[in-house]
Amino acid sequence: MKIVAAAAVAAALLATPSANAQESRMSETLKAVAPALDRYREQTLLGGVWKRTDLSARDRGIVTLAALIARNEPGEMAFTMNRALDDGVAPREVSEIITHLAFYAGWPNATSAVAVAKDVFAARKIGPDQLPSASPDPLPLDEKAEATRAETVGRQFGAIAPGLVRNTTDVLFRDLWLRPDLAPRDRSLVTVVALIATGQTAQIPYHLGRAMDNGLKPPEVGGVLTHLAFYVGWPSVFSALPVVKDVIEKRSR
Amino acid sequence: MKIVAAAAVAAALLATPSANAQESRMSETLKAVAPALDRYREQTLLGGVWKRTDLSARDRGIVTLAALIARNEPGEMAFTMNRALDDGVAPREVSEIITHLAFYAGWPNATSAVAVAKDVFAARKIGPDQLPSASPDPLPLDEKAEATRAETVGRQFGAIAPGLVRNTTDVLFRDLWLRPDLAPRDRSLVTVVALIATGQTAQIPYHLGRAMDNGLKPPEVGGVLTHLAFYVGWPSVFSALPVVKDVIEKRSR
Amino acid sequence: MKIVAAAAVAAALLATPSANAQESRMSETLKAVAPALDRYREQTLLGGVWKRTDLSARDRGIVTLAALIARNEPGEMAFTMNRALDDGVAPREVSEIITHLAFYAGWPNATSAVAVAKDVFAARKIGPDQLPSASPDPLPLDEKAEATRAETVGRQFGAIAPGLVRNTTDVLFRDLWLRPDLAPRDRSLVTVVALIATGQTAQIPYHLGRAMDNGLKPPEVGGVLTHLAFYVGWPSVFSALPVVKDVIEKRSR
Repeated sequence: MKIVAAAAVAAALLATPSANAQESRMSETLKAVAPALDRYREQTLLGGVWKRTDLSARDRGIVTLAALIARNEPGEMAFTMNRALDDGVAPREVSEIITHLAFYAGWPNATSAVAVAKDVFAARKIGPDQLPSASPDPLPLDEKAEATRAETVGRQFGAIAPGLVRNTTDVLFRDLWLRPDLAPRDRSLVTVVALIATGQTAQIPYHLGRAMDNGLKPPEVGGVLTHLAFYVGWPSVFSALPVVKDVIEKRSR
Repeated sequence: MKIVAAAAVAAALLATPSANAQESRMSETLKAVAPALDRYREQTLLGGVWKRTDLSARDRGIVTLAALIARNEPGEMAFTMNRALDDGVAPREVSEIITHLAFYAGWPNATSAVAVAKDVFAARKIGPDQLPSASPDPLPLDEKAEATRAETVGRQFGAIAPGLVRNTTDVLFRDLWLRPDLAPRDRSLVTVVALIATGQTAQIPYHLGRAMDNGLKPPEVGGVLTHLAFYVGWPSVFSALPVVKDVIEKRSR
Repeated sequence: MKIVAAAAVAAALLATPSANAQESRMSETLKAVAPALDRYREQTLLGGVWKRTDLSARDRGIVTLAALIARNEPGEMAFTMNRALDDGVAPREVSEIITHLAFYAGWPNATSAVAVAKDVFAARKIGPDQLPSASPDPLPLDEKAEATRAETVGRQFGAIAPGLVRNTTDVLFRDLWLRPDLAPRDRSLVTVVALIATGQTAQIPYHLGRAMDNGLKPPEVGGVLTHLAFYVGWPSVFSALPVVKDVIEKRSR
């Protein structure tokens, strides 16, 4: 019954002819249970945080989509994916975001997102020509930085989980991270969002540093935190804040 | 197929004419896979923890519902919501619990719960007159305590995420927390449950202190932990225990 | 719509006559969105990690199933359950894994899994005679070790949550853990997987020590970590790694 209700809400979001009609349906559903949520949605979320200038609309699409996939929350995923595509996230980038999160949030999260994306892509007539190759020419690798990373991880954990250490090198840092259809800065953004969204604060220092090396700027980080609070809840963001602050302050010394 | 099965279970829980019939259907489903779960449900859960006197039935409804929404687990949400309404949680309180968790567990968790509540409210003929206003007259604000909170957070994180710091003041503490249709003690209870249910232990000290300021008593906290262990798993509760213990002991000195 | 899509994917996984046909359908779905995921699935997941010798196929089935239940991710649960049954996990063991995780991941996670297992068991004609008894003769209890555990927990938390402390003894350690239809080593394995999968690192030391007392070997622990990275994401496993390393190193001194 609940599943049917969720499907009805999802259908309300998708099957209607125009974005305005979708908005209006969601508004009616929220009002039937929690009129305040409809107000917060209009004033605080769509009329507030989404209009802030500390992050582009395209970045907000990436951040929201990554958060939903990382937490395996498909209810608003089709709506979010369509909006991201409207706001300039390319289909090949959506494809890579899902692929990346298979490794940073778990394989089942990726297959859930694939089920949503398949329908969204079909409705928008996005075909194989707009998707990344399975094995494209990789981006150039910073051999020195990667050697340092591999050496550190190998020294720490090579004796405990040798297969994991090898896969981390071969599958993640010498394959996944070098895929060219998502810019390294965006790939890092997706990773940092996944870490905040799933409470993996211990992994934030390395990946936030990498994100900033890849071009993410401190005010954008602030924008990500401000945006994410709405989509993953205040507590997850506040638990990440001291770690984020520490990384940013150490880099500015 | 799994979704269909889940829908069938959900339907079994909802579509039958009487509560007894619902119980009997769930019992049959559990027995078909795990007879022990049926025994634990009858003896340990319904016949045990729900009968304990350290927490009222109404509080147990709030705690269980908040845990399900915080973890976005809709499978038993309609059943739990109906039981909570039967046990004295008002429709306006259910509405506010969902609204509150939009901010403390994430917006998509709230819209999932709205989809469930919409059907539950319709079946019980709960109309707009029983729902909270979108913008009611707020409860009085403790200006001094709020100024201290805002100053602390602003000093710590204002430079990193100014938008988040402003929203925390304007949207949460000067709006959401002042909504009158859920008592501050219950709002705090929902918040603490969400923190335990989602493993956000770092946020427990502030909010448990606030909950006790708002009237939650130490034996009730023990009752919440005992109850929650069944709904969010023993490990989440045991990870929260040392923090909870520390808060309670410091206040009793 | 998304729910319908997920159901379609799930149906594609289940309703087809042969395992080969299922594989081929999943492959087509992945290719329509993310061709790289299809490559990773074939080469890295099925052709790579599942073929490693540091863990048996049966153990991989237990680990994968426990991870999906602990994270309440039903999308691939029927497929995983069928594969586990093919690889030598007995129906009574699947039943006990679900029962165990009701307490170590939360009751709603177990009822979600029951909904999936009910259909899987029906399709394989697994009847009540192949299920564990609700109240079987318990395994012998190590009274001394249990007295030490109970004394420690009681001293720490007995004043804060007496009901929880009592249930931990009566329901978990003098009942659930003594159920004979899942070997203690496998029960411990399920527990450790649930802790890693849900980020409950604080509970790992006790349960990993217990798992090794129950016969889990260090190379198998490495195999579990290597395998789990794919199913729960790299960050959850890397957050667990320092704790796991510490436990293993302390025991080898």
